[in-house]
Amino acid sequence: MEELRVTAGGNLGPIDSARIPRYAGAATFARLPRIDQVEKTDITVVGVPFDSGVSYRPGARFGANHVREASRLLRPYNPAMDISPFERVQVADAGDMAVNPFNINEAIETIQQNALDLTHDGARLVTLGGDHTIALPLLRAASERAGEPVALLHFDAHLDTWDTYFGAEYTHGTPFRRAVEEGILDTEAISHVGTRGPLYGVKDLEDDRRFGFGIVTSSDVFRQGVDETVAKLRDRIGNRPLYVSIDIDVLDPAHAPGTGTPEAGGITSRELLEILRGLRGMNLVGADVVEVAPAYDHAEITGVAASHVAYDLVSLMADEISTRKDG
Amino acid sequence: MEELRVTAGGNLGPIDSARIPRYAGAATFARLPRIDQVEKTDITVVGVPFDSGVSYRPGARFGANHVREASRLLRPYNPAMDISPFERVQVADAGDMAVNPFNINEAIETIQQNALDLTHDGARLVTLGGDHTIALPLLRAASERAGEPVALLHFDAHLDTWDTYFGAEYTHGTPFRRAVEEGILDTEAISHVGTRGPLYGVKDLEDDRRFGFGIVTSSDVFRQGVDETVAKLRDRIGNRPLYVSIDIDVLDPAHAPGTGTPEAGGITSRELLEILRGLRGMNLVGADVVEVAPAYDHAEITGVAASHVAYDLVSLMADEISTRKDG
Amino acid sequence: MEELRVTAGGNLGPIDSARIPRYAGAATFARLPRIDQVEKTDITVVGVPFDSGVSYRPGARFGANHVREASRLLRPYNPAMDISPFERVQVADAGDMAVNPFNINEAIETIQQNALDLTHDGARLVTLGGDHTIALPLLRAASERAGEPVALLHFDAHLDTWDTYFGAEYTHGTPFRRAVEEGILDTEAISHVGTRGPLYGVKDLEDDRRFGFGIVTSSDVFRQGVDETVAKLRDRIGNRPLYVSIDIDVLDPAHAPGTGTPEAGGITSRELLEILRGLRGMNLVGADVVEVAPAYDHAEITGVAASHVAYDLVSLMADEISTRKDG
Amino acid sequence: MEELRVTAGGNLGPIDSARIPRYAGAATFARLPRIDQVEKTDITVVGVPFDSGVSYRPGARFGANHVREASRLLRPYNPAMDISPFERVQVADAGDMAVNPFNINEAIETIQQNALDLTHDGARLVTLGGDHTIALPLLRAASERAGEPVALLHFDAHLDTWDTYFGAEYTHGTPFRRAVEEGILDTEAISHVGTRGPLYGVKDLEDDRRFGFGIVTSSDVFRQGVDETVAKLRDRIGNRPLYVSIDIDVLDPAHAPGTGTPEAGGITSRELLEILRGLRGMNLVGADVVEVAPAYDHAEITGVAASHVAYDLVSLMADEISTRKDG
Amino acid sequence: MEELRVTAGGNLGPIDSARIPRYAGAATFARLPRIDQVEKTDITVVGVPFDSGVSYRPGARFGANHVREASRLLRPYNPAMDISPFERVQVADAGDMAVNPFNINEAIETIQQNALDLTHDGARLVTLGGDHTIALPLLRAASERAGEPVALLHFDAHLDTWDTYFGAEYTHGTPFRRAVEEGILDTEAISHVGTRGPLYGVKDLEDDRRFGFGIVTSSDVFRQGVDETVAKLRDRIGNRPLYVSIDIDVLDPAHAPGTGTPEAGGITSRELLEILRGLRGMNLVGADVVEVAPAYDHAEITGVAASHVAYDLVSLMADEISTRKDG
Amino acid sequence: MEELRVTAGGNLGPIDSARIPRYAGAATFARLPRIDQVEKTDITVVGVPFDSGVSYRPGARFGANHVREASRLLRPYNPAMDISPFERVQVADAGDMAVNPFNINEAIETIQQNALDLTHDGARLVTLGGDHTIALPLLRAASERAGEPVALLHFDAHLDTWDTYFGAEYTHGTPFRRAVEEGILDTEAISHVGTRGPLYGVKDLEDDRRFGFGIVTSSDVFRQGVDETVAKLRDRIGNRPLYVSIDIDVLDPAHAPGTGTPEAGGITSRELLEILRGLRGMNLVGADVVEVAPAYDHAEITGVAASHVAYDLVSLMADEISTRKDG
Repeated sequence: MEELRVTAGGNLGPIDSARIPRYAGAATFARLPRIDQVEKTDITVVGVPFDSGVSYRPGARFGANHVREASRLLRPYNPAMDISPFERVQVADAGDMAVNPFNINEAIETIQQNALDLTHDGARLVTLGGDHTIALPLLRAASERAGEPVALLHFDAHLDTWDTYFGAEYTHGTPFRRAVEEGILDTEAISHVGTRGPLYGVKDLEDDRRFGFGIVTSSDVFRQGVDETVAKLRDRIGNRPLYVSIDIDVLDPAHAPGTGTPEAGGITSRELLEILRGLRGMNLVGADVVEVAPAYDHAEITGVAASHVAYDLVSLMADEISTRKDG
Repeated sequence: MEELRVTAGGNLGPIDSARIPRYAGAATFARLPRIDQVEKTDITVVGVPFDSGVSYRPGARFGANHVREASRLLRPYNPAMDISPFERVQVADAGDMAVNPFNINEAIETIQQNALDLTHDGARLVTLGGDHTIALPLLRAASERAGEPVALLHFDAHLDTWDTYFGAEYTHGTPFRRAVEEGILDTEAISHVGTRGPLYGVKDLEDDRRFGFGIVTSSDVFRQGVDETVAKLRDRIGNRPLYVSIDIDVLDPAHAPGTGTPEAGGITSRELLEILRGLRGMNLVGADVVEVAPAYDHAEITGVAASHVAYDLVSLMADEISTRKDG
Repeated sequence: MEELRVTAGGNLGPIDSARIPRYAGAATFARLPRIDQVEKTDITVVGVPFDSGVSYRPGARFGANHVREASRLLRPYNPAMDISPFERVQVADAGDMAVNPFNINEAIETIQQNALDLTHDGARLVTLGGDHTIALPLLRAASERAGEPVALLHFDAHLDTWDTYFGAEYTHGTPFRRAVEEGILDTEAISHVGTRGPLYGVKDLEDDRRFGFGIVTSSDVFRQGVDETVAKLRDRIGNRPLYVSIDIDVLDPAHAPGTGTPEAGGITSRELLEILRGLRGMNLVGADVVEVAPAYDHAEITGVAASHVAYDLVSLMADEISTRKDG
Repeated sequence: MEELRVTAGGNLGPIDSARIPRYAGAATFARLPRIDQVEKTDITVVGVPFDSGVSYRPGARFGANHVREASRLLRPYNPAMDISPFERVQVADAGDMAVNPFNINEAIETIQQNALDLTHDGARLVTLGGDHTIALPLLRAASERAGEPVALLHFDAHLDTWDTYFGAEYTHGTPFRRAVEEGILDTEAISHVGTRGPLYGVKDLEDDRRFGFGIVTSSDVFRQGVDETVAKLRDRIGNRPLYVSIDIDVLDPAHAPGTGTPEAGGITSRELLEILRGLRGMNLVGADVVEVAPAYDHAEITGVAASHVAYDLVSLMADEISTRKDG
Repeated sequence: MEELRVTAGGNLGPIDSARIPRYAGAATFARLPRIDQVEKTDITVVGVPFDSGVSYRPGARFGANHVREASRLLRPYNPAMDISPFERVQVADAGDMAVNPFNINEAIETIQQNALDLTHDGARLVTLGGDHTIALPLLRAASERAGEPVALLHFDAHLDTWDTYFGAEYTHGTPFRRAVEEGILDTEAISHVGTRGPLYGVKDLEDDRRFGFGIVTSSDVFRQGVDETVAKLRDRIGNRPLYVSIDIDVLDPAHAPGTGTPEAGGITSRELLEILRGLRGMNLVGADVVEVAPAYDHAEITGVAASHVAYDLVSLMADEISTRKDG
Repeated sequence: MEELRVTAGGNLGPIDSARIPRYAGAATFARLPRIDQVEKTDITVVGVPFDSGVSYRPGARFGANHVREASRLLRPYNPAMDISPFERVQVADAGDMAVNPFNINEAIETIQQNALDLTHDGARLVTLGGDHTIALPLLRAASERAGEPVALLHFDAHLDTWDTYFGAEYTHGTPFRRAVEEGILDTEAISHVGTRGPLYGVKDLEDDRRFGFGIVTSSDVFRQGVDETVAKLRDRIGNRPLYVSIDIDVLDPAHAPGTGTPEAGGITSRELLEILRGLRGMNLVGADVVEVAPAYDHAEITGVAASHVAYDLVSLMADEISTRKDG
């Protein structure tokens, strides 16, 4: 009974909410077509229901579908960027990857391979987590597709550059250290944004700096404002192929209670969205939104925030792709 | 990335949980195929996201998808009846009907027409509500398909045989009065099960009796037990084409907090399932499970109960269909 | 904009739900008139928002209004007893007593005086708590009005016959010991029903027995059934003026999560209602429902249970009063 | 047992919290007198329990009483404006309108007539919703009483100027388009404040602009600050009779989870209150606070925010009325 | 500031609640001494915060501490068995095992070694889970200490005798198959109690039967009652060293919402406690209570039920030990 | 099984999270040693589970342990101040005071005596409440130890300088009036920060000013920013011995729903933390964080905020102590 709308741009758009209420039907991201309903995608939204890499509250395995449910309210025109992303390019939802919850190493390989498969024809991925462990295989695939190390904007309360935890190399606290070690990041252009809260020791910061990371703390965002934050980030990254990884715990727990390792003093959802919109025109080759843990969410506060974040990521990509095509 | 399993019976069964974790992918009922993935169904599960007929707490518009989410845990073999329903017959999920929330009369027509369309080739419906208003058009379709008035087992805390409410004829408190008036029920064989709680007046009971309804209260179930309850119900209904309508508020609020008009002193989910299993072999031509209001649910208590109820309804139908086919 | 209905019995009944939806307007118990809207009451429902006597989870100060909110769903005819209580006698809601939260002794005096004032013309009280501390002043008033010590049925997970706690004589764990000491209970006819869970020592039971209490545990109710339970209770109490005190924690936490000292293994709301209905015809001179702590409730499970309990208490009183009047 | 305080201004003020604890008694707004307890009001608070016009999460039918419950904490002196509103003018609570949930057209007429009745003697209304559908009949009444089209400040995440939805003209997404069409708004002086989130298309904005609306987005409030926002709004509206309609979803979901169509990136409750206080001295002839859906609230976060908003609206009106009287 | 009470039996008992309120201080099980505060224990309560073996909702890693918090209400005398367990024998809380969340195999070894260490001097363990994976290493230790295969009573909605899941041998669905394979169970005396809900296929039952398991379903408990259930179980097990493993999901979701794989139609907490008490005198050498997932609990319903279950397990052991000592 | 880490500074630090997962073991504040595990402390964290002084929602008696649970995530290095507080000085958790819930006067004496005992050797206290009543005895002890009246920074939505409430002198609304009357505050240097919301009358402000209090409202923080706020506060207080009392309701309900008397329009957790960090170098002799009421919290939003606040208070003290020692 679904009725997908052919957009003015010729792409297959979301289910028509004037005919089928938003709460009806299965929830794909933003009520977009499933990937099997379109021939080819420019941007693919995909879920990774995996949380075996968490060190505290688990539950992000249910995150992708939670964000999809909350995304029922997303409409097709983004006034903040004056763009109709689903009209400009073909966006579709590829559903969830089938990932082994009992074997982290196998899980990482599956994710990497799936990501490569989904991008073999040039599509870009916006991935819904899952815990932050998944950023590593996604970055591997993104840099392989880019043909070079990628720049990274990492929005998070935490650094996620720890080494090992209980002997495990691949956890939600280590993806970016591994990525640096593997040479898949362009260490001239990697930054954390929104960090705050206590660390294990000053060595955490020293290691992080040594890897090449810049840090814009939550306090920095508060004190210098969005525009200066954006200017610095753009300055550092320039034209490089850019991957954006957003741990939803970058938001204050007031804006994202549904996550595994909350820290007080975070940025607001408005600040995050404003910063993202400031990235317009950059060469965004891949992105993820991770660590949404629905069992701790309330009234979809976190799910709604994550869905808007993902929507703006899609909009940025759609804008860049279509501008380039047109240009 | 979905992988549906072809069952021993040749039907297309649920997604294989040994390959794709239960929490992954979109939620169809019991992870069954979508209706567009099969050629023909014997039993069709369909949702009706409509709650504009409620007199107290709204929210059942989100009920069908909530039950689907909770149904991820359902496995394909039903040991209580020793049957693998999805192997015996083809069951599929038709998604949700697109129903107008602002016009009850139009909504009822849409539901009736959809139900007729879905059953044109002999398939039987198990409908996930939505509020109880929807039972009327579903009964209309069921009796039209049966070619005669149908018997009714109505599990509910309430009678739902009120006349009008604020001038409205079609609400969640009136479907069975309307159905009697329309002559689509076989009034020799209609019963409420599980009623309790205060009424407006003794006239409610008198009207109800006049329409032909028998009543097995929650107290009766408690005092006479499941087997005697079942025996009496079977006795009354016999071989007639039977429609079973289950308002989840028939369960005690402890077992079903997520509903609109809760009443203390209800039956347990175990009692309800035992009674349903007692209906084995009866000619169940249609069924619904209604009034699941997720905003009031907790940890899917209500969703899980409703999913088991719907699963047993499907099992009963599958058993009857396959037995008849084989016989 | 309220419209109270004059009942067939000439009493002023609840707001007419056919004209004003149940969710509209201020919540008096069962949408009954406020006491200032009637000339005289036969039964008065009153709230006591006090919880300074609790030893564990506080919050019962919000209990009375929570029960009133949940009581919006109560309709005026009680089919379980075939009685329209508000038609038979005048019932009204006296609102809440104004009780000092910082001084238990003063609070007890206020409650006692208010209870006496509300019953000066022969009205009987059904009190909504508040914590169990309030039973003592309510019993004082009830026995003073009865002119003799009263019989007591005490539904509770606990004995509430402890001596002192942190030096305090008047707490929610001590009212019935105090009542025995004050000679306001007829110790030939006092029973606990529904007790379970661990105690401090065997001496708790010995003291309790010495005071004269009989005990019907939750296990006893389960094993001997409702009818035998009722028979034994009636046998013991006979015709005496009877006070019924119901701690909502007598229900299993599944049926009453919203309370301060939950114990697993409790009776169901159906069992409690069945036992209460078994008290028909007894000389019920006063009653309370206490320990509803809304901050721990979910979807009004506890509030709905308590409202049905209070409704049946009112029905029992109304039946006895009107039968006596008629007789 | 209620004790209303006669204020220094001679008006009947709220219940005295030094004698009756805030959690005791029935909840009128800010514990003010019921309208039947006073002779005449200057400002009347009234509830409209209606949510049949919602397109997503229902439940605002319970909103007015939820805000009243949360308003128990409001004290009578407003230090932010240095005013004791209940002393300056007579404020009372008229309870809830009795509105048909099954017939939107009838509901709108009822609301309009009730609003006219309540303002026949010059009183101004502060209405607690209910969904945003109710703004249309309230605006009709306001402009009829004003004798001219009124200016409008509309705080909302959404435009609410859509045309029809499922064929329905009167829903919570359409009141301000209808109001423009009916000529009851002074289109020189109408503005949305706090909008954000995706739309259906750029045409939404074009239509809106054509109707005359100005827009101050949530992003604008963030970037230009409260004072500049206020200055622009005042500039546009001047001395005109002004109606303020506040959809609580103008607040970020962190500040107002209990609503039906949440959007991330909203303004804070502090920003909203600061803007409102900036309206001091304007000719505020009517106001509403709508879309509070308690089933999605937590710990009264939304209820408390809405109660403070309503309190400041009352304060603004009281200040203007009393200043004019004195002047 | 803690004050532990020396009991009449000479053992160190729980913190004295007459001096330190139950809500004060750190939560050991039943406020018992920490293991470092006593010289030797007869019974040791220990937590295993591990949930990396779950196939659906994770979170049981927080289970042990949740049960401890809920156990603050447990008092030292168990009237249902007329025993003061902490007086009879020394019981203490050993805190939590430190288990690797990222390596199931290592985790199992750690648990096994810890269990052996804690029982080296003859103490018996009551373990608080953690997911059901942990039963395997606990059974290994129990049978090693018993010097023979042990009998097993397994309370659960599920069989937990599946083979592998995603290639993993050790998960929460497989411990008892592994235990049979390892020869650590006395297959003449192993039973599931409380099972219900769908399975993958009839082969699940066939395998299970082949391993030697008896099954008492939730339906059986309902139909045959507690006493007959107990008689059959005792009959089968006799005098053998017995391990009792209780998955809290054996309870209906109404009684235990806080768990990972809920199934409707379960037994009540009263039934479970009655069955456990029926095991009095049996040779209970070890026990666990697992699968409490606090993120899904409400108002500690599940935690309280689990704490009572653990308390009765301790009481059974204490009774048997002290009787044997005395005998 | 606990393993405390000896820090580089020679002090006993928190449990090593690389060996024992953060969710394992009993929760002391920040997983620090218990006071009985160290010889002497420089800073002692202690809980006061007392809430008998509240005028609205109770429940803060559970606050201290809730904050401890949320503090499991705190790591030992504070990057915002570039300090490892537990390395610099010895910090330990003294558990909870045993306070009488039924006698406010006795409770206050117990708290005062306990505070004196805990500081007899020069240790400073960071106290976790409990309701705000406890600030009075804590201030008495602090000024006695300081040998002079202390300066006060009071973060709160409310003034807490009311006189009596229902005749009670010692409640959560009166501690600072009492403290002024008792001469234990240096009235040249006392300020409220973050106040907002209505008062009883202008006299509240006049009294407060007369006592010497300065006020920085939530609106002031918003308008003048953190740095100017800090500068003014430092200016006023200078070198005096300073006590910081933080009612968690100073935060907006979005950031702290779990509290008893929430007011909209509050400061954010980021603002609060930034202000606290601005106090670096001041002579902080004592501090408390009060009014955390867990029953109203969600996903530990409030607990996490309070834990970060307490952590920064400890960091400030540790910095000042160690700087002084070194200096």
